[in-house]
Amino acid sequence: MATVSDITVSAAINSLSALIFLVAFAILRLQPINDRVYFPKWYLKGIRETPSTTGPFVKKFVNLDFRMYLRFLNWVPAALRMPEPELIDHAGLDSAVYIRIYLLGLKIFFPIALLAFAVLVPVNYTGGNFKTVSLKMKDITFGEIDKFSISNVPSASKRLIAHIVMAYVFTFWTMYILYKEYKIVTDMRLHFLASENRRPDQFTVLVRNVPPDPDESVSEHVDHFFRVNHPDQYLSHQVVYNANKLAKMVAQKKVLHNRLIYYTNKHERKPDKRPTTKTGFWGLWGKKIDAINYYADEIEKLSIEEVEERKRVIGDPKAVVPAAFVSFRSRWGAAVCAQTQQTRNPTRWLTDWAPEPRDVYWDNLAIPFVELNVRRLLMAGALFGLTFCFIIPIALVQTLANIESIEKVVPFLKPLINKGSIKSVIQGFLPGIVLKLFLLVLPMILMEMSKIEGFTALSALEARSAGKFHLFLLVNVFLGSIIAGTALQQLKEFLNQSPSEIPKTVGVSIPMKATFFITYIMVDGWAGIAAEILRLVPLVMYHLKNIFLVKTEKDREEAMDPGSLLWPVTEPRMQLYFLLGLVYSTVTPILLPFIIVFFAFSYLVFRHQIINVYHQKYESAASFWPDVHRRIVIGLMISQFTLLGLLSTKNATNSTPFLLVLPILTFWFHRFCKNRFESAFRKFPLQDAMIKDTLEKATEPHLNLKLYLQDAYIHPVFKDGEIDRSMDVYDDDYPVVATRRSSRKGSQVGTREGSPDERSGILAV
Amino acid sequence: MATVSDITVSAAINSLSALIFLVAFAILRLQPINDRVYFPKWYLKGIRETPSTTGPFVKKFVNLDFRMYLRFLNWVPAALRMPEPELIDHAGLDSAVYIRIYLLGLKIFFPIALLAFAVLVPVNYTGGNFKTVSLKMKDITFGEIDKFSISNVPSASKRLIAHIVMAYVFTFWTMYILYKEYKIVTDMRLHFLASENRRPDQFTVLVRNVPPDPDESVSEHVDHFFRVNHPDQYLSHQVVYNANKLAKMVAQKKVLHNRLIYYTNKHERKPDKRPTTKTGFWGLWGKKIDAINYYADEIEKLSIEEVEERKRVIGDPKAVVPAAFVSFRSRWGAAVCAQTQQTRNPTRWLTDWAPEPRDVYWDNLAIPFVELNVRRLLMAGALFGLTFCFIIPIALVQTLANIESIEKVVPFLKPLINKGSIKSVIQGFLPGIVLKLFLLVLPMILMEMSKIEGFTALSALEARSAGKFHLFLLVNVFLGSIIAGTALQQLKEFLNQSPSEIPKTVGVSIPMKATFFITYIMVDGWAGIAAEILRLVPLVMYHLKNIFLVKTEKDREEAMDPGSLLWPVTEPRMQLYFLLGLVYSTVTPILLPFIIVFFAFSYLVFRHQIINVYHQKYESAASFWPDVHRRIVIGLMISQFTLLGLLSTKNATNSTPFLLVLPILTFWFHRFCKNRFESAFRKFPLQDAMIKDTLEKATEPHLNLKLYLQDAYIHPVFKDGEIDRSMDVYDDDYPVVATRRSSRKGSQVGTREGSPDERSGILAV
Repeated sequence: MATVSDITVSAAINSLSALIFLVAFAILRLQPINDRVYFPKWYLKGIRETPSTTGPFVKKFVNLDFRMYLRFLNWVPAALRMPEPELIDHAGLDSAVYIRIYLLGLKIFFPIALLAFAVLVPVNYTGGNFKTVSLKMKDITFGEIDKFSISNVPSASKRLIAHIVMAYVFTFWTMYILYKEYKIVTDMRLHFLASENRRPDQFTVLVRNVPPDPDESVSEHVDHFFRVNHPDQYLSHQVVYNANKLAKMVAQKKVLHNRLIYYTNKHERKPDKRPTTKTGFWGLWGKKIDAINYYADEIEKLSIEEVEERKRVIGDPKAVVPAAFVSFRSRWGAAVCAQTQQTRNPTRWLTDWAPEPRDVYWDNLAIPFVELNVRRLLMAGALFGLTFCFIIPIALVQTLANIESIEKVVPFLKPLINKGSIKSVIQGFLPGIVLKLFLLVLPMILMEMSKIEGFTALSALEARSAGKFHLFLLVNVFLGSIIAGTALQQLKEFLNQSPSEIPKTVGVSIPMKATFFITYIMVDGWAGIAAEILRLVPLVMYHLKNIFLVKTEKDREEAMDPGSLLWPVTEPRMQLYFLLGLVYSTVTPILLPFIIVFFAFSYLVFRHQIINVYHQKYESAASFWPDVHRRIVIGLMISQFTLLGLLSTKNATNSTPFLLVLPILTFWFHRFCKNRFESAFRKFPLQDAMIKDTLEKATEPHLNLKLYLQDAYIHPVFKDGEIDRSMDVYDDDYPVVATRRSSRKGSQVGTREGSPDERSGILAV
Repeated sequence: MATVSDITVSAAINSLSALIFLVAFAILRLQPINDRVYFPKWYLKGIRETPSTTGPFVKKFVNLDFRMYLRFLNWVPAALRMPEPELIDHAGLDSAVYIRIYLLGLKIFFPIALLAFAVLVPVNYTGGNFKTVSLKMKDITFGEIDKFSISNVPSASKRLIAHIVMAYVFTFWTMYILYKEYKIVTDMRLHFLASENRRPDQFTVLVRNVPPDPDESVSEHVDHFFRVNHPDQYLSHQVVYNANKLAKMVAQKKVLHNRLIYYTNKHERKPDKRPTTKTGFWGLWGKKIDAINYYADEIEKLSIEEVEERKRVIGDPKAVVPAAFVSFRSRWGAAVCAQTQQTRNPTRWLTDWAPEPRDVYWDNLAIPFVELNVRRLLMAGALFGLTFCFIIPIALVQTLANIESIEKVVPFLKPLINKGSIKSVIQGFLPGIVLKLFLLVLPMILMEMSKIEGFTALSALEARSAGKFHLFLLVNVFLGSIIAGTALQQLKEFLNQSPSEIPKTVGVSIPMKATFFITYIMVDGWAGIAAEILRLVPLVMYHLKNIFLVKTEKDREEAMDPGSLLWPVTEPRMQLYFLLGLVYSTVTPILLPFIIVFFAFSYLVFRHQIINVYHQKYESAASFWPDVHRRIVIGLMISQFTLLGLLSTKNATNSTPFLLVLPILTFWFHRFCKNRFESAFRKFPLQDAMIKDTLEKATEPHLNLKLYLQDAYIHPVFKDGEIDRSMDVYDDDYPVVATRRSSRKGSQVGTREGSPDERSGILAV
């Protein structure tokens, strides 16, 4: 087991690397040349422009105002300064609620940590168990950290009452904070939705599994069906073309175009030499040819093909998928259609609220019901395999945490490993980073799996991927680390246990794994978050693009990659910290400060990133909150069961009934919150729809809704240049904020753009 | 353990009692005096009348046509003769689908039994385990029955492969039949709903939790809310009065009235003596007074009070509960309102499809959301307590099944008990009957619990009670019999096992309990069902009433108690047989014929009862089927887990993965069926509503819907004499079948009454 000095070394390394990242960030962000990497959000909003070239040439690239370097940490107050309502206006509700999760972590764990340090740490430290049991448990070595944990309390000691009482206090506190937060987020969401401007998705329903009709095309069939069954409300519909091939062509053309620009730039710099390339894969082999001509020809060819494909898709009735976006005269009509069943066969005419236009995942709109069921079954199997086969490499990694195991396996390395500093590095640093590498590749696999499952909105895909990743982290990082790690130590004992003994086993191992998780928190939580703010990958990518591809201002804007909150990765990771905090709050409270530092630091960093960097791909109005809430509740219940298991092995079996009350109460709390709040995130109250409809009718009686909706749900490949047409439908007296680039990243028709001048003050760094 | 001779005795006793019941039924049903007990359905339909008094006086009471007695079993073909569509017309879809459950049992178990007897019985019988293990397992005695069970196969024998293969075959067969049946029932339901006449509940939505408004009454508030939020569809509404006190008065008046009639009749028979009664409780003590005057006065007093209360309820705004029945202009409008959320607060303005008027449970309409939540939590606790404390008496009963245990407890009874015949009686007959007595009182408790839970329809109350009773039977009769019974034999071994070992324990005990369950099936299933057809309690009650209370023909009709299918009792009981059949199909197939006899006999009896006797209190259009399906699937999964547990103790642990596939597949099957079919039972497709609306508009353009709905949802106590008013709204050209008594048992406006003449042939016995 790692000792206190291992932890100290690890803390030093990680704090240092975090500090290095922060200093690097502080310096890099002040350079004008990096401005688009660290403040892309403002560019997208049309508020900030490329620094003008007044002053010496070098100033365009390097900031020479040294006073600014002295205040290298003043992004922190700047990040905290923007008030929440303005933040919602600026970055959307999703982002604003996202950082509230970190705040929620602080709200839960700060009081818990105070109480735990006041009560449990003294109780544990004076427990004196290790003096008496050192003989019996010779197989497991305990570190000094364990003196502060429940392991130091002897079996059947009266001191365990303190832990039970604290488990109650912590549970009630967590439930109280969770309830309050659910209420706040619900109110925020309802207020946000109520004050939202007109958006196409408010009037539109996505219809899938339109049954085939021998006499009518899909478009006619949809039209007739809704004309008959929603006679007063039906307005229009938009069929969905299977433009997947066309979209691929467009993407390929874009690649070829980039290569052309690259070679043109090259040629411009050295006009005496025509650049060449090879015809083979990635230009690595094959005949040598003139690059500029080659790519120009290729683009020409592809353009012709594209035009043909475009014609084919629009003309061919087979290119129409059995799905459509159906629009209604009012929000009320759409709310009715989205919430009701249309026909007696529940596998046909499936209606659901349409996602925002930019949120639609077009590839999945055509999947029939039975195929969808089979896909989900297959993916459930795949997830099971993925979750339970990953445990093998993780187990191997975990053995590293126990240096004695390595020595046993490779005894000839013993002299090397036993050198104090190397030992500390291996024990403190390596396990966390290897695990981290494993986890980096995973979200992409999970996202692909969600796509195969057939969800039709990016937001749904991300929510599902997050669910999968959460399961994975739970089984592999949390349970896997605990059981596999201990399994190698206590293999013999384990083989004789039945699998149903897992809760007890977990409970027993929990205190022993505290140091491992502390290391993990520092590597993943501290240094990882600091790396997040530095944006090393986008920084390098931006400058590479800038050198090779950028010619015009427009190119520069395209080279800019603001990124977005990686919901499917960051949220489950956060949940792991909630879980660790809750589990260790009663067992090894010394872990809590590390978690609190993580939440506080993350809050700062992500608030800064949301204000200055990220550009969300969609706005779901915090529809993810029920997931967040549920997963924290799951964490709470796991913590209660592990404590139950732990105490039952401490010969405190008569505590079982007391502790069994907690998960039951927690579950009831979950049900209660679900009943009380969840429908605000899933359903669409008719009253609210009616209020907005009535208001709109009064303020804009001449609105041509049909025109407004006409192009809203067209596949992006058909949209080139036509994007802003739908803005014309606003009556002249309707104030449209003049944004220069509001439609760059998808169609943002109607998303809220506040007045830019109000908050440019945040940039005065 | 019971031996084969015990079983034979039990079978003889039970068959004999069943036969006696049947003969008694055959004789009693031919007597004209009992005609109203055995054919009340036909009286209620208005097809049959009290036998006229042509012929000798005695013929009014006794049937003297002896030829009819010879054909005493010819109710059987009569019961089978009516084809299913006619049965649906005659008795409703609920009843028709109900008896299909028995048919489903036959469809599942008959082929399974054939296969099991062809394959498993020979495999088991030649297993020869008992020769080798008789020494080791001396504590448990095996009966001869066990030679046909899996117990006779030695551990780790290759023969067990046959059981695993059969488990697969049985599972797939059951799933296939279940799927087919779900499809058929769904089609039947949809067809039934589509061909249904106009009914008030098609246009009406029940709104609960109307929030209080300081300025408006409930009625105004409801009116304004729906006028605003469903402007095109809202028609009218009916507030709900808290008439619980008034209803009690009406009920009490009825009791007093009965007593008055009793004494009046007494006086008429002996005109020389005025009957007297006493003022105290039930007329048992107190001052002696003239009975007729006393009750006449009491009725007078109560009538005045009732009138006052009636005025108070209608006049007092506080007597209006925050709930209402809201009616819409079309079925489409009602379907929309029932399926959507009205406001952002999901605890207010809760809308749900209104039950049929006669299905409404008026007492529960006023319960607020929070109180409802608390009530359900409390009842969940109560159900838990009830389920797990009943296990103690059951355990005591089960010890009777093991006569050796009795001898150990009360050794002085040994000589008496050991007499062959007494021993057989005790072992074969007693355990079943004591358990049965326990179970008789339970459904009433469970129904009361469901009422406290606050459901607003009788159908929902019955469905919930059935769910509770099913849980109870599962835990107490099935698991309780198995574990507790064995616990007394193997107590010492049990105490050393952890509670998570239950599946194994159950698996091991299953084969040993086969004889107990065979006895149970014969007592509960065979003799019990035969008693059902005899209707002993209604017979006695009818004649008592006839003697003491009946004066007019109308009184005689009120004395008739047709009863109804006791859904909350009969369905879970049936499920127990499904469970037993599935569990024992691979373990002790010899139990299957007993189950098949039960299903076949029950099918006959209940088909007869449905045609001739029962009068359903409501018609839910088979909305219970998803419950039936789910519970059979649960039984299937239990059978798979018990086999898994059993085989893992037979040293066939490498069979575990093969057997683990089955419950996973079964669960997936359940999900699939749920997705595919369940919405037909829970939701209301707009297309169907629209079709009916359009059709109605075309055929009856002048229908005054408001008038039609005006009195539909009025508390029954306000309805005296006004019942048939709502029939007036039919246009004159609308053919109303002239039924004499269609509104006797609740308001049946619009339920289907076929032409009576078509099927009176069934009565020609």
